[in-house]
Amino acid sequence: MKKWYEAAAQDADVSSGTFISLARNLEGVPFPSRMSMSDRRFVWDKVRETLLKADGTEYGRFTKISLETVPSVHAVSLAEAGLINAETVTDRVGCGLITAQDESLSAAVNGDDHLTILSKAAGLQLQEAYSKADGLDTFLDRNLSFAFDRQLGYLTQNPFHLGTGMIASLRLHLPALLESGSVGRIAQNLAKLGLTLRSVYGSESNPRGAFFRLSNQVTMGLSEQEALTNLSSMANQIISRERKMREDLIHQVSVQDTVLRNLGVLQNARLLSFDEFLERASAVRFGITSGLVGGISVCDMDTLIYRVQPATLTFESGGAMTEEERQKHRACKVRDALKQGMEDS
Amino acid sequence: MKKWYEAAAQDADVSSGTFISLARNLEGVPFPSRMSMSDRRFVWDKVRETLLKADGTEYGRFTKISLETVPSVHAVSLAEAGLINAETVTDRVGCGLITAQDESLSAAVNGDDHLTILSKAAGLQLQEAYSKADGLDTFLDRNLSFAFDRQLGYLTQNPFHLGTGMIASLRLHLPALLESGSVGRIAQNLAKLGLTLRSVYGSESNPRGAFFRLSNQVTMGLSEQEALTNLSSMANQIISRERKMREDLIHQVSVQDTVLRNLGVLQNARLLSFDEFLERASAVRFGITSGLVGGISVCDMDTLIYRVQPATLTFESGGAMTEEERQKHRACKVRDALKQGMEDS
Repeated sequence: MKKWYEAAAQDADVSSGTFISLARNLEGVPFPSRMSMSDRRFVWDKVRETLLKADGTEYGRFTKISLETVPSVHAVSLAEAGLINAETVTDRVGCGLITAQDESLSAAVNGDDHLTILSKAAGLQLQEAYSKADGLDTFLDRNLSFAFDRQLGYLTQNPFHLGTGMIASLRLHLPALLESGSVGRIAQNLAKLGLTLRSVYGSESNPRGAFFRLSNQVTMGLSEQEALTNLSSMANQIISRERKMREDLIHQVSVQDTVLRNLGVLQNARLLSFDEFLERASAVRFGITSGLVGGISVCDMDTLIYRVQPATLTFESGGAMTEEERQKHRACKVRDALKQGMEDS
Repeated sequence: MKKWYEAAAQDADVSSGTFISLARNLEGVPFPSRMSMSDRRFVWDKVRETLLKADGTEYGRFTKISLETVPSVHAVSLAEAGLINAETVTDRVGCGLITAQDESLSAAVNGDDHLTILSKAAGLQLQEAYSKADGLDTFLDRNLSFAFDRQLGYLTQNPFHLGTGMIASLRLHLPALLESGSVGRIAQNLAKLGLTLRSVYGSESNPRGAFFRLSNQVTMGLSEQEALTNLSSMANQIISRERKMREDLIHQVSVQDTVLRNLGVLQNARLLSFDEFLERASAVRFGITSGLVGGISVCDMDTLIYRVQPATLTFESGGAMTEEERQKHRACKVRDALKQGMEDS
């Protein structure tokens, strides 16, 4: 079954994914940080039981994973897929995950909150992703009672999520803006408007692969639709600037040279670390979206980026690997995925 | 017409060329450093006239180039081809060059000596190259009287060439020995045996592309055949060591990774400096000789190395070029020459 990121989508040249998460908690049960073991079991059983009713309906079939029983490489691979957060990986007792087969819709249980409903879509599809998350939220609310306060809205463990409990975000690929050195300034300006822009890979000071996550920060005093509109409008401005800069860059021979060399290395390397892969994949992705590189789609590239993450690669290959084996295997997958790539003339 | 280096030859995996030069001077005429202009004209006319008699015989057709009239990019390209030396490029008045069409046999006039007969062959062919040079020497000696002393042998401007006046050399590609750090020590040992090993490109401390020239230093007290046997025996030892080390290296995944990445970059780059090209070409040449890279022959690679040298590239393209234009043009030629290259499986 294909994953959500394997679909072609509008604006995928810059937006490589749309994410909506809704934080929800069950009335009368302490927040995760204060839950007893029996509270955890109760919530996990309750959510699982409820979702069983939705199984096989519009949501397709759900996979239920009791996180405390899975090996840690599996747990890390779920974090790499964005289905659970990093903290859950280290403390998985009583935690669970329920996910649709294409991973476009999921619910993490006993992470930051009792329930984190997560909806994902390729490209820029805020409304679509929101309505999917909202549908599941409505269904669950009918069966479980969510903690809600007339003044504060949904009650969440993290006070910054009080209100809608919704974090909407876009995974933006900004190689041209990063190259121009203006990402830092843009992030500062966005912060004043209640939005954050953070690098997805690497550190803030040394981002890898030019992938950034643009998210709303404000969950209170603003409806879900207002937050989405706000995010969408800023995203469109950033996307326009990125496109304009890419167009200027791609006409430079030295930039074409860099893009095509990166393609050449990815098509030929026998060993590849994930960090190196990301940097080169970012250049090639830019080349694809600018029409310089043909034979590979943006979607192929995004799929590859998800698939060759360290734990995902190891887990899907079914076992333990040394770092050299992993690099060898990654290089092999990359060569295979990019073998059709060439200058588009 | 193909050049001498475009022929496949034995031992070409390590030896990319054999060179025999014979220094000769005309009796009764001062050495080049003390020649008057009329002396220079006299020698050039005399040699040209004599070689006219040999034109169209076993040597094929000769091309005669009066060096003072050619543009400097042409003169530099002749130095890059090894037909004249670097000093002649800067002071070309009264200098000349006569060369067979495949450049396997040539005579430079009024360089270090009145005449430098030069014979070139692919791979390791010391006897063949010597007999070709010797044949032309004998023919010329019959028509011009060469300065010869019973005690000292042939008289040459450079006292280190007195005697046979013969410098025999091999262009050895030693990537594995260079990688192992043992080239310096080998060169020191060879010096004790009257041989020199010097890098062809880059400096001694920073050789580019792992090409070295192994030459005899002793021209006196030793016959031509003794000098050739001596050189040949040491060359065979070096070649064996290089082959052994290449075999060990090529089984390492990290080495295969390096070789194939270099191929990938050369097949995709849009801009290439000659130094960068040399380094990468050296790795690919090693990959070809080790059976890792297929679709390209060692001879293709050696031809490419000659053809994309800065002045050769500029001269053959028929005009002045900026450095960026040259790098673009070089990258284009390299891509074209290596497009069939791939992992040999």
